[in-house]
Amino acid sequence: MESQTMKHSHSILAQLVLPMQANPAGNVHGGEIMKMMDSAAGVAAQKHAHTNVVTARVDELNFKKPVLVGELVTCKAQVIYAGRSSMEVFVTVESEDLITGNKQIALTAFFTMVSLDENGKPSPVPKLVYDENNAYESKLYKVGEKKHILHNQRKS
Amino acid sequence: MESQTMKHSHSILAQLVLPMQANPAGNVHGGEIMKMMDSAAGVAAQKHAHTNVVTARVDELNFKKPVLVGELVTCKAQVIYAGRSSMEVFVTVESEDLITGNKQIALTAFFTMVSLDENGKPSPVPKLVYDENNAYESKLYKVGEKKHILHNQRKS
Amino acid sequence: MESQTMKHSHSILAQLVLPMQANPAGNVHGGEIMKMMDSAAGVAAQKHAHTNVVTARVDELNFKKPVLVGELVTCKAQVIYAGRSSMEVFVTVESEDLITGNKQIALTAFFTMVSLDENGKPSPVPKLVYDENNAYESKLYKVGEKKHILHNQRKS
Amino acid sequence: MESQTMKHSHSILAQLVLPMQANPAGNVHGGEIMKMMDSAAGVAAQKHAHTNVVTARVDELNFKKPVLVGELVTCKAQVIYAGRSSMEVFVTVESEDLITGNKQIALTAFFTMVSLDENGKPSPVPKLVYDENNAYESKLYKVGEKKHILHNQRKS
Amino acid sequence: MESQTMKHSHSILAQLVLPMQANPAGNVHGGEIMKMMDSAAGVAAQKHAHTNVVTARVDELNFKKPVLVGELVTCKAQVIYAGRSSMEVFVTVESEDLITGNKQIALTAFFTMVSLDENGKPSPVPKLVYDENNAYESKLYKVGEKKHILHNQRKS
Amino acid sequence: MESQTMKHSHSILAQLVLPMQANPAGNVHGGEIMKMMDSAAGVAAQKHAHTNVVTARVDELNFKKPVLVGELVTCKAQVIYAGRSSMEVFVTVESEDLITGNKQIALTAFFTMVSLDENGKPSPVPKLVYDENNAYESKLYKVGEKKHILHNQRKS
Repeated sequence: MESQTMKHSHSILAQLVLPMQANPAGNVHGGEIMKMMDSAAGVAAQKHAHTNVVTARVDELNFKKPVLVGELVTCKAQVIYAGRSSMEVFVTVESEDLITGNKQIALTAFFTMVSLDENGKPSPVPKLVYDENNAYESKLYKVGEKKHILHNQRKS
Repeated sequence: MESQTMKHSHSILAQLVLPMQANPAGNVHGGEIMKMMDSAAGVAAQKHAHTNVVTARVDELNFKKPVLVGELVTCKAQVIYAGRSSMEVFVTVESEDLITGNKQIALTAFFTMVSLDENGKPSPVPKLVYDENNAYESKLYKVGEKKHILHNQRKS
Repeated sequence: MESQTMKHSHSILAQLVLPMQANPAGNVHGGEIMKMMDSAAGVAAQKHAHTNVVTARVDELNFKKPVLVGELVTCKAQVIYAGRSSMEVFVTVESEDLITGNKQIALTAFFTMVSLDENGKPSPVPKLVYDENNAYESKLYKVGEKKHILHNQRKS
Repeated sequence: MESQTMKHSHSILAQLVLPMQANPAGNVHGGEIMKMMDSAAGVAAQKHAHTNVVTARVDELNFKKPVLVGELVTCKAQVIYAGRSSMEVFVTVESEDLITGNKQIALTAFFTMVSLDENGKPSPVPKLVYDENNAYESKLYKVGEKKHILHNQRKS
Repeated sequence: MESQTMKHSHSILAQLVLPMQANPAGNVHGGEIMKMMDSAAGVAAQKHAHTNVVTARVDELNFKKPVLVGELVTCKAQVIYAGRSSMEVFVTVESEDLITGNKQIALTAFFTMVSLDENGKPSPVPKLVYDENNAYESKLYKVGEKKHILHNQRKS
Repeated sequence: MESQTMKHSHSILAQLVLPMQANPAGNVHGGEIMKMMDSAAGVAAQKHAHTNVVTARVDELNFKKPVLVGELVTCKAQVIYAGRSSMEVFVTVESEDLITGNKQIALTAFFTMVSLDENGKPSPVPKLVYDENNAYESKLYKVGEKKHILHNQRKS
């Protein structure tokens, strides 16, 4: 099984936030954004594994600023570490006020995704190769590797 | 400001899973369940604080089994620790196959919610009192307290 | 075929009312609540019959107070009478203002559900047993029985 | 206050049934159709009263045949009796298989709607005039009048 | 293969516009209306062809006035020209303020629909016959014919 | 009023297609994609004008291949010509099969958007500057200009 670069799995989901996605307080329902992040993590994992994938775990999902109706929300995801059949995915959400052009990171999170074969059993995924001369990729890989080891310890 | 018991914030959301909530693989979209858990955490926090609340953080959200279309999904949430203006909420999701009557825990997670005043600034919440003779409540309180301390260290 | 108690079918659906469920006047669209009641009646009937069920009839669906965006809506349903393949289900909807903690019954209704076999034909359901020492159960059973007889007369 | 004819309030809502409106068994969720009927009853009442209206009660809602995904569903509503501030509305739902062209009545129901003024208080509505030479209108008016009297007795 | 009249395909979809269909500015999301027009064009084409149909092209979709939440939107579609397997469909959208009773044409558009057989291949459709004594039908037919010829030239 | 480059308005919306967006035939409802294209055109126009915008017209919306549930749909939009208060926007939709990695253009269309001031009246927009050494931008600008002139002739 060949390997894939970290860039290969880079994925973007984006939407204009509509009033139907608001919570009773008028901001965007946090759950709507979480749903979008979950889809983005799935897309990144599918781009890496080219199989069906499921979400196994979400961690450190931080709401940094509220997202408002009418803003453009762009969700970026990429696989930062690949185990045998599981992948650590880092997801960021940026919101943009289209009138002022002001952009801000609204949320970040780590998702653990698992590759499944046709029978719904965990299936192997390609190794992840990162650019060692790229400080950002190196850092993300180290974080992903650490999370992967931690999850495995917790299970055993 | 008076205190509230852990039981007081106990909240239930429940729905029959519809085909419109499925992911392309035919199971329930993980994001749909995360959205429901976020609402449930918000209800528990509102029952404790009787104010508007927002989600600040989600951790250790574990998918233990897939949820299927047609199942009854019951989401239980309760505040397990209260700081000055933030609350740790433990959320569990149980799915039930209504033909066989078989029930299973499908997901669990910890949500950190923050109470807001009318100007959207953090506002104080009642102290949380737990039943020291109840082993389950005592354990949840300890877990919540530990999480609260960890979050504060991370911020400082 | 064994019998089931009235308590056995007791079912709860609950949701936080979101802005997307509002009608043009800003209250919750009555149809959204009716849809939730229909699901709840189906869950109660499935808990009794452990088969697929369909709605045959709705009666005396009364709107007692408007439901507002942001309220917690809890829908309770239970089978109150079982015929050969049909079941009478009583459904109540309670809305709770989470800031004040004030709860009120918002709607009540009677649903007639029918159990179906794999070919979509009516299939027999267990007898319903109620607690004769429980005045509330006894009253509900009498009401359900009366409705059942009335429906049968109408059809013949 | 002038009077309105029964024909004046005649209203049509219609939609192509989409997979997102299915129940777990693959037919259309009964609640989706009930929601559409509630909207249609509201439109007919608004056409008669030219005010805001709310649903007060639903009765004799009969499911005569299941509605399938892909069918055209046409919902017709008209005011059949007008009291001081309440209106009885008769609603029928017809489903059409667009491949065969076969049409059938799928549901019928009676809705009681109430006209509201700007303060949300019941407000008077025009008298309803029906065509005494039209047997169908005459019959509907008699049914509506009977229901209206029955509802009033129940309340007093 | 028999022919069908232009009247035969006349189709109506109609809905009460709900807050969930609003754009961030509070009017109805143009895309929601476009979705409804697409469904209506499909219904008209299915009434003519009695087969499955897909949208091939949309042209001259004009927004003449904004549609507001709470208005009744009625979408009328009819086949105005039929080629071998494609149909030109004219769609109009009328919005009605139910308080004032004021009605206006809000949008119009031309849709090109294609009839498909069970294998998803283009399949022949009945000829379209229009009433030559009806000026409106004659004009629509000429417009549809011209569009059809134009599309064919563009493809070759 | 300053000018903006064509690149400045380049906008991306993207989503994973869910079963709830399917039409009765199981492909994605064309109207769902049209809705997404309308949002993307609005985002591009807002990036150029930094005002509220509305859709005035859609033309040459071509469905080149069906979009399937589970595919990643990426919608790109950019302003290609700016008049006084109106903007021509070119929108393309690409669908990607995440298992095979195969990408195809599924739809293209031209949208005419109008900038509005706080009173809902047309308001001036920045001039559009394109890169004359870029053959693609030059061609798009010419197409947009031609469409703009054509629309103006049609209105007068």
